[in-house]
Amino acid sequence: MSIPSDPRELIAKARSGDRASLARLISRIEYRNEETKKIIELLYPLTGKAQVWGITGPPGAGKSTLVDRLVTKLRAQNKKVAVVAVDPSSPFSGGAILGDRIRMQKHTADSGVYIRSLGTRGRHGGLSHSTKETVLALDAAEFDVILVETAGVGQTELDILKLAQTVIVVLVPESGDSIQVMKAGLMEISDVFAVNKSDRPEADKLVRELVANVGLNPHDEHSWMIPVCKTEAARDIGTDALLQEIENHQKYLEKSGKKAEKAKAFLKEELFDILIEAMKSSLEAVLKTEGGVTLLEQLYQKEIAPYEAAKILSGQAD
Amino acid sequence: MSIPSDPRELIAKARSGDRASLARLISRIEYRNEETKKIIELLYPLTGKAQVWGITGPPGAGKSTLVDRLVTKLRAQNKKVAVVAVDPSSPFSGGAILGDRIRMQKHTADSGVYIRSLGTRGRHGGLSHSTKETVLALDAAEFDVILVETAGVGQTELDILKLAQTVIVVLVPESGDSIQVMKAGLMEISDVFAVNKSDRPEADKLVRELVANVGLNPHDEHSWMIPVCKTEAARDIGTDALLQEIENHQKYLEKSGKKAEKAKAFLKEELFDILIEAMKSSLEAVLKTEGGVTLLEQLYQKEIAPYEAAKILSGQAD
Repeated sequence: MSIPSDPRELIAKARSGDRASLARLISRIEYRNEETKKIIELLYPLTGKAQVWGITGPPGAGKSTLVDRLVTKLRAQNKKVAVVAVDPSSPFSGGAILGDRIRMQKHTADSGVYIRSLGTRGRHGGLSHSTKETVLALDAAEFDVILVETAGVGQTELDILKLAQTVIVVLVPESGDSIQVMKAGLMEISDVFAVNKSDRPEADKLVRELVANVGLNPHDEHSWMIPVCKTEAARDIGTDALLQEIENHQKYLEKSGKKAEKAKAFLKEELFDILIEAMKSSLEAVLKTEGGVTLLEQLYQKEIAPYEAAKILSGQAD
Repeated sequence: MSIPSDPRELIAKARSGDRASLARLISRIEYRNEETKKIIELLYPLTGKAQVWGITGPPGAGKSTLVDRLVTKLRAQNKKVAVVAVDPSSPFSGGAILGDRIRMQKHTADSGVYIRSLGTRGRHGGLSHSTKETVLALDAAEFDVILVETAGVGQTELDILKLAQTVIVVLVPESGDSIQVMKAGLMEISDVFAVNKSDRPEADKLVRELVANVGLNPHDEHSWMIPVCKTEAARDIGTDALLQEIENHQKYLEKSGKKAEKAKAFLKEELFDILIEAMKSSLEAVLKTEGGVTLLEQLYQKEIAPYEAAKILSGQAD
């Protein structure tokens, strides 16, 4: 049983349930070359059926344990589930997600679960692009639910969450103070709150604060009131109710037409990403030519100013 | 004493030492419109003399206290100092820098110190662009040293540090574990390490680990060995030695020609930023036209695929 190298065959085999082919397909997407384009063109018409959920929260909030519980419950409903864990880009908060992946390995024997980590380091804007296209591949491979987990500590991670239809923000009682300051930011991205480790002191206080803020900042002009769920993922408490709220949000999206709206906003971002990536490659090439080197030198010597130089460079790249 | 509205007069007044004009100038840069371009063209030839230092590290490492000490010492050398504090983009780690700014207020009566916070929320890639241009304004306003402080938790913050000639990474003994995992990432961005709160247990262990890693991964083919400084910013211990190492690094950059090399790499990024920002505005405009709306709808209906749609969109934007 070899892994096909032709993109069309590879996609067909990944869709038939062959995990090695799916893994290879995603690796090719991550690798990002001319072939990626071809793969996406082939995948795209096959997509659009999966539910995409985003999960974020501060390090140590128990996101992975919660994801683990949700995966188990979705499997009990006989749904195919994929988990895409996006590792944070910062050197200061790495490692945690990778470590947690090991815990998820109990699902590896289950052919209805697929888990993939994507790393951010050295990728800059490219990561959100790769993540989006990985989700396309998983959607085409007929996963019912794709869970995208990020550490949520930077703009890249927040950008990535735009691909999700439903965003779950996981908090812990200790995070109460910091959310005080920036609660508006949380309200913007969250569709469902989970207050995890809710057996700890201060959990009720955090829940009350969140509920009060949800009341002040209702989503979508009052039509979706963000629920606040108390969970203890480690003991599987409150997780059924959380799952129910996520499913309610999905139903709400369908009924209200917001699903299409979100999908279009996401596609717009995707178009931008494609064109920015193409422009960067083209500019890199121009800056290596004699004209490009001279231009950079003139800019450095302050013989020309940045916007003027950018205009010239853009002309050279055409 | 009114604030001039003409960019040329505003710049002249900011350069003459008028703080209200400098603040207005930076606000106009942050605002980002057609005028920004004009301002930068005027500022650019006036820049190139300032030293730009970047300071990063995990939340709670004591970066602001350290910055505070460095500012005081630089003032004692009669140098004009500006601090640009870039607030983290994540809702989970906001606030800290803003709170610390209050502590810095003791410098506000000193006309040789200027402190400015820049926020990231909702700005996406635009923040690093605004930060770079704010540094240009401060450089033109003849500050001798510009300290750019970031929380260092995401790609945006790491991008911002590219504008610094010397990057100081501040760690605390407790961060020992996490750096184990990603130490390569720290080595890449750091020119000087400060192990702060070094009276705590485990400080020597962290110093030893860092020194060992510096030995394994020397900067610039052995020519700059990253120093590891023990500091207790709260008690002003070790901070003179840290300052000395930063000054040594600046001398090294001058002598080795690396300063010009770094400046050119930074200018290249600046050109990319300018062109990407311009492309985004142009695409946003096209997507609002009838043709743009139709294209997005066709993409949503899967009548065309993303790369094909991007190509069409790019043609419409030309």
